[in-house]
Amino acid sequence: MNALIVDTAGERPIMVPGEHPDPVPGKRELLVGVKATAVNRADLAQKAGKYPPPEGASPLLGLEMSGVVEQTGRGVTRYRPGDRVFGLLPGGGYAARCVIHEEMAMPVPKELTFEQAAAVPEAFLTAWQALTWLGEVVEGERVLIHAGASGVGTAAIQLAKQRLGCTVAVTVGSVEKADLCRKLGADMAVNYRHEDFREAVAGAWSPAGIDLIIDPVGAPYWERNIDLLGLDGRLVYLAFMGGSGVDQVRLSNLLRKRLTVCGSTLRNRSLAYKIALTQDFQAKNMDLLAEGRLQPVIDSVFDWTEAEKAHQRMEQNLSAGKLVLEGF
Amino acid sequence: MNALIVDTAGERPIMVPGEHPDPVPGKRELLVGVKATAVNRADLAQKAGKYPPPEGASPLLGLEMSGVVEQTGRGVTRYRPGDRVFGLLPGGGYAARCVIHEEMAMPVPKELTFEQAAAVPEAFLTAWQALTWLGEVVEGERVLIHAGASGVGTAAIQLAKQRLGCTVAVTVGSVEKADLCRKLGADMAVNYRHEDFREAVAGAWSPAGIDLIIDPVGAPYWERNIDLLGLDGRLVYLAFMGGSGVDQVRLSNLLRKRLTVCGSTLRNRSLAYKIALTQDFQAKNMDLLAEGRLQPVIDSVFDWTEAEKAHQRMEQNLSAGKLVLEGF
Repeated sequence: MNALIVDTAGERPIMVPGEHPDPVPGKRELLVGVKATAVNRADLAQKAGKYPPPEGASPLLGLEMSGVVEQTGRGVTRYRPGDRVFGLLPGGGYAARCVIHEEMAMPVPKELTFEQAAAVPEAFLTAWQALTWLGEVVEGERVLIHAGASGVGTAAIQLAKQRLGCTVAVTVGSVEKADLCRKLGADMAVNYRHEDFREAVAGAWSPAGIDLIIDPVGAPYWERNIDLLGLDGRLVYLAFMGGSGVDQVRLSNLLRKRLTVCGSTLRNRSLAYKIALTQDFQAKNMDLLAEGRLQPVIDSVFDWTEAEKAHQRMEQNLSAGKLVLEGF
Repeated sequence: MNALIVDTAGERPIMVPGEHPDPVPGKRELLVGVKATAVNRADLAQKAGKYPPPEGASPLLGLEMSGVVEQTGRGVTRYRPGDRVFGLLPGGGYAARCVIHEEMAMPVPKELTFEQAAAVPEAFLTAWQALTWLGEVVEGERVLIHAGASGVGTAAIQLAKQRLGCTVAVTVGSVEKADLCRKLGADMAVNYRHEDFREAVAGAWSPAGIDLIIDPVGAPYWERNIDLLGLDGRLVYLAFMGGSGVDQVRLSNLLRKRLTVCGSTLRNRSLAYKIALTQDFQAKNMDLLAEGRLQPVIDSVFDWTEAEKAHQRMEQNLSAGKLVLEGF
């Protein structure tokens, strides 16, 4: 089958269109003809040799997809060939076919295109996990989402506003990204290039008492995050794009404000965890997705043969929303 | 009524026997004749002027007590005069009488003396909160408890072993304290004066993968704690007796091991929270307390007029288990 193969011969690893054997669906697995997949930062890290796929996963890149069921493995009861499905993958999405456990697959709402559906799983499941499973957000709370215009950020804004009834502030790096976030429902968008987010948030929401912060940035924001959190506040790390080394940490605030700090990734979780998360997301949000009240934000769509361009766009932080690949 | 009054006239604040007006039970409150109370580090801090009592609390010291109901306020349904009760207080235990919300009071099992009952609430409720509500420990997990011979430590060892089926390691500062912890059920007791706990625990339980650490020490243990935690590990701070400033923190482990770090105190929690915690503890542990499978560890009992001696014993880290005051 067609697949993107990582070529490590040159100065830096690049993806090249190539051939890879078709995967074979195991027990309760679906063989899916991939219609679209989307780019994640983890793909860039894996391509660079820094993020090996978990045991048992496809060696190919690609952590999410939408497509059509071509064949079902033993014991499959939920889907039949021809069904439109989308979902998370531990790898293997950058290819013409992939396998997925039937309980990890969600039916594509008829209102969504394959491009749209492929842009949902990583962004929305990660955001849902961070907001509810880890962040334990409740209605009316104040949420600060860093990298608001990222895939996860745009999903988190919408989930926090449309499903969870929160007040939302975001940080972004451009006027266009700020506009996008406001359009998605953010109550406040701080351009970190022009304003200090601590001052902006504390100034607007005085007395500052953020209940939950979702942060893929890390060390540079540590102190300001801790300062902004209110009593019983939670700080959820999804990545450390700005580094993870903090020179001076005062733990005292953890006790004084009863804070919780945690870090989480989705990819290395157990299948059981990911199934439970997928099912929970599906049960609580598929209606809003079908109604268009939750919208995957797509930055741009690339033919699979131009996947390197999509990676470069992400590497340069130019994208707002998801980068979709199709045409495998 | 008799009460311990903080005298700030001298070089450093001390408690002196004195008089204080009787408290008046409000709606759903009990007026309790205090038979015994116990010492907590928060009392030392409050005496030193560093830990003001929460709003609405008695200005007197004393965060727990056992005694006999003398009078009931409006709407009380659970207790009658003459009932033996014990429980947490937001303050006011260092006196001949105190008031407590009826849902914060637990009946003293007939097998327990007042001295024993007074040694239970802060230690066991804090330990229960840290292990289950915050630490979310499940059967079979590995727990590391710092300051194992403290009131909270001795309670946590027993709860972890007797009720929660965990494997338990502790750190302590003397041979006697190590023996005490082993007697209470600890599988491993590391004397931090002679051994590095990271090496000892990692060596004995290789590959090191602690699921939960309960730590009142803070900064000096930060790095070793983080190193010892396994995947999905939790670190619960109860105090920072060794300081709270950490240099050079690497947050990366939070993500890589999906760790959760939180801090919590009990005193400033809402009444509703403390009632729920008290009721949960009572429902799940009172049988073990009555059977003697959970035992409050009492270091020593002092007449109330000698309370300063008890405080000094705690200040000098000489106590193993609780310091009880009686005879008000």
